[in-house]
Amino acid sequence: MDVYISGVGMTKFGKSKDPLQKMMANAASIALREAQLERVDAIYIGVMNVEEFVGDSNFATLLADTIGLTGIPSTRIETASSTGAGAFETGLYAVASGHMKNVLVLAGEKMTHLPTAKTTRILSEVIDRSERRYGATMPALAAMVVQRYAQEFKISHQKLVDILAQIAMKNHSNGSLNPYAQFRKIISKDDYLKSQMISFPLRLYDCAPVTDGAAAIVLTSNPTPVKVSGIGHATDTSAVRHRASLTSFNSTKEAALKAYGMAQLNPSDIHFAEVHDAFTPFEVIGTEDLGFFPSGKGWVALEDGTTQLKGKLPINPSGGLKSRGHPVGASGLAQLVEIVWQLRGEAGEGRQIERAEIGLAQSIGGLGNNNFVTILERSDRKRLMKEGWKLNYHPEITVSPKPIASPPSEGIGTLETFTTLYSPPEGFLSPLTLGFVQTNWGERVMACNPDYRSPKRLKIGKQVNLRLREGLYVFEKQPPWTRLKHWIKSLA
Amino acid sequence: MDVYISGVGMTKFGKSKDPLQKMMANAASIALREAQLERVDAIYIGVMNVEEFVGDSNFATLLADTIGLTGIPSTRIETASSTGAGAFETGLYAVASGHMKNVLVLAGEKMTHLPTAKTTRILSEVIDRSERRYGATMPALAAMVVQRYAQEFKISHQKLVDILAQIAMKNHSNGSLNPYAQFRKIISKDDYLKSQMISFPLRLYDCAPVTDGAAAIVLTSNPTPVKVSGIGHATDTSAVRHRASLTSFNSTKEAALKAYGMAQLNPSDIHFAEVHDAFTPFEVIGTEDLGFFPSGKGWVALEDGTTQLKGKLPINPSGGLKSRGHPVGASGLAQLVEIVWQLRGEAGEGRQIERAEIGLAQSIGGLGNNNFVTILERSDRKRLMKEGWKLNYHPEITVSPKPIASPPSEGIGTLETFTTLYSPPEGFLSPLTLGFVQTNWGERVMACNPDYRSPKRLKIGKQVNLRLREGLYVFEKQPPWTRLKHWIKSLA
Repeated sequence: MDVYISGVGMTKFGKSKDPLQKMMANAASIALREAQLERVDAIYIGVMNVEEFVGDSNFATLLADTIGLTGIPSTRIETASSTGAGAFETGLYAVASGHMKNVLVLAGEKMTHLPTAKTTRILSEVIDRSERRYGATMPALAAMVVQRYAQEFKISHQKLVDILAQIAMKNHSNGSLNPYAQFRKIISKDDYLKSQMISFPLRLYDCAPVTDGAAAIVLTSNPTPVKVSGIGHATDTSAVRHRASLTSFNSTKEAALKAYGMAQLNPSDIHFAEVHDAFTPFEVIGTEDLGFFPSGKGWVALEDGTTQLKGKLPINPSGGLKSRGHPVGASGLAQLVEIVWQLRGEAGEGRQIERAEIGLAQSIGGLGNNNFVTILERSDRKRLMKEGWKLNYHPEITVSPKPIASPPSEGIGTLETFTTLYSPPEGFLSPLTLGFVQTNWGERVMACNPDYRSPKRLKIGKQVNLRLREGLYVFEKQPPWTRLKHWIKSLA
Repeated sequence: MDVYISGVGMTKFGKSKDPLQKMMANAASIALREAQLERVDAIYIGVMNVEEFVGDSNFATLLADTIGLTGIPSTRIETASSTGAGAFETGLYAVASGHMKNVLVLAGEKMTHLPTAKTTRILSEVIDRSERRYGATMPALAAMVVQRYAQEFKISHQKLVDILAQIAMKNHSNGSLNPYAQFRKIISKDDYLKSQMISFPLRLYDCAPVTDGAAAIVLTSNPTPVKVSGIGHATDTSAVRHRASLTSFNSTKEAALKAYGMAQLNPSDIHFAEVHDAFTPFEVIGTEDLGFFPSGKGWVALEDGTTQLKGKLPINPSGGLKSRGHPVGASGLAQLVEIVWQLRGEAGEGRQIERAEIGLAQSIGGLGNNNFVTILERSDRKRLMKEGWKLNYHPEITVSPKPIASPPSEGIGTLETFTTLYSPPEGFLSPLTLGFVQTNWGERVMACNPDYRSPKRLKIGKQVNLRLREGLYVFEKQPPWTRLKHWIKSLA
């Protein structure tokens, strides 16, 4: 059964004085008014961690009651930072099942009222426990991904800084045209370079902000001008170190495969996309994972203007998570609201994309392990004969190696990537240097080094010594005799 | 599209040393083995508050990875204490939509490792914030419901104690036959009477325990011996005081209406049921709300043996939440596992119900505001012609009055119900007396009375004075001149 969108709504993202349920009720009432509905058959509520952010549980019930829909079935959905997309998927299947005619999908988060240390702790709980123990935060893991990306694709540090700054500048520029965005100011490369280093090489302007906000969409089985044409959802290993590739996300690729297949569309058919840029490098990796550009070449499209608002394939016309803001539970749904506005030609002067008939949203949950790809299109778009359709998207899905049950407590390895984190979680000294080390026992481990205080002294690809200290691997510069010792040991 | 059950699994409920993901993985592997599946198309994870109970977020991803299904779409569902049923409903619609052929529904909670005060706080977060501020806990609200029930249906305190004891005894007796139950000991009325008073009149043996446990069900579009014939889901006001009726749950009735309608079955067609007995009186109220017995008469069926294991309509053959245990996120799914076992004739000697072709489960989220009714049946059961079918269940759905925007800071009212809570949340003095007062301005409010230390001195139906102190209503015995004062005021 085909599913359509009959209403969308959003609050202005940013710092809000309203309680979360009021923000979400506001978004819901806009969407319901657009859909010309007073009631729906079910409500799907996306909130990531309402228990710790605002101290409420049983939130789906509270919301149904707050928006005046007491009695209506209401279910809370969560898939980490892709929660809004998860709620959308769940609502979509409920309508597609024929059991519901109209459902309200409602997503939000309230984050700005808490002290930064608490927010960081809450956000870090999405990280695998074993990696969290090292003090890894989301920016630290993202920084290690981008460091590896630059190494693998031979991008100099200087060039990398330039690419990241350009993404931030593009998304701030787009966001300046979006009345719903948290940040509406254009930034210069100088502003970017002056912004605080969070986790080398990522600066404050590489990271999506802490935001309050809510978004709503009404899904229906009655034809409307906007149709859901495809959706895909996939997970990946909980621990980042357990993945074969650090420079792309399997979960995006698998989700995209399903979404393109269901929509019978190819990457080249997409007119514009909202891509989960919680960290600037994720926008580049996302556009590669989605098949828009070859691996390691996404940044070229940024430089040549392809992904600019007036380019051939605008990416994040809304300003993205970077500039619209990132209320973690809401972002996945806010992306889809932007796509609906663009498809309907309602994005407003300056921001409206000229050719907007098919839009795609990609949402990342956790550190790339619960991802969604959703494709919406105008219902009046003329489709080619389905008979002749062939999927020409064939991403490389890497197979994650099995972790080793009892890894040794010391050994040698190669430093695959690293970061120096300047705002580690409570209980960790700053700066905190973390790395991924490919060990001589065939496994990748996370390791820390309390002695490296500056990222300048480290180099990816170097041999390091590893030893277990209080249950954590510590990596150290290798004295010259170490490799010989291990070589002799391996002969024995 | 019809949806069937191809596998079920459960861990023994109780106190477990395993981490939550291991318990859930164990339940999943049993269900997948039964279903003869190595992979599924999606996973639906039911956990109520994994953020605060175990300190993890992004749990759906962690679970997919833990059970060896890395990559598979995995979504977390939550509807407070009915979460397991919520995950089942979501999985059901995913299969019914035709987008999924086989899905794994997996629910669990780990609770026993925390100190009681923290567990109480976490569980209380499902209560409306305005009622939580008074120190209301789940047992306190349940106690106020049963006190009102006894008053409305003219049941003496002595009789009430006897009824509650009988429910506890029946469910412990059933649980003694269930190898998966937390408590496998029969209890006597004397044991019941000796158990600690939690919130007058509810004793420890009226309350489901704190439990670790997990349950799993595989849903499929391929016919199997057990079919899902109906499901219903409904919410109610977040605040208990905003409901017209305190002695039944609209949300159960509305959910039952939908479930019976979808299954084309009547209450009299049901052979046995699992009813959410988080508190013993909820079993009686549940059987009335489900249309098995008239309002106020559910306890008669208990006394005459109807709801006993060998009776005409066995209720909670598993031992219920009371005796099987209540890992909050898992209970709604564990009920359905029991129903599948009974339908398949696999419940084991002593516990197996003779005529078990249609079973019903009712699950309560929060204090009766996110409820589910699910009906399963044997696929080989002969059905009557659908043409002639007529629903003969017509429950009274009460309409909740709108709360008043700016209620006065003092007035008079009638004490509708009360409890004395002996284990209030941290920060409150014990004992804590709470009540619902029907005010002279036409609204029901929650109120506390720090002076009443014993429930014996209070009586439902008495006039009380109300005044606001530090934002909370306090009720007090009425001096004789008060009503006159208010009467004169109302003339002015």
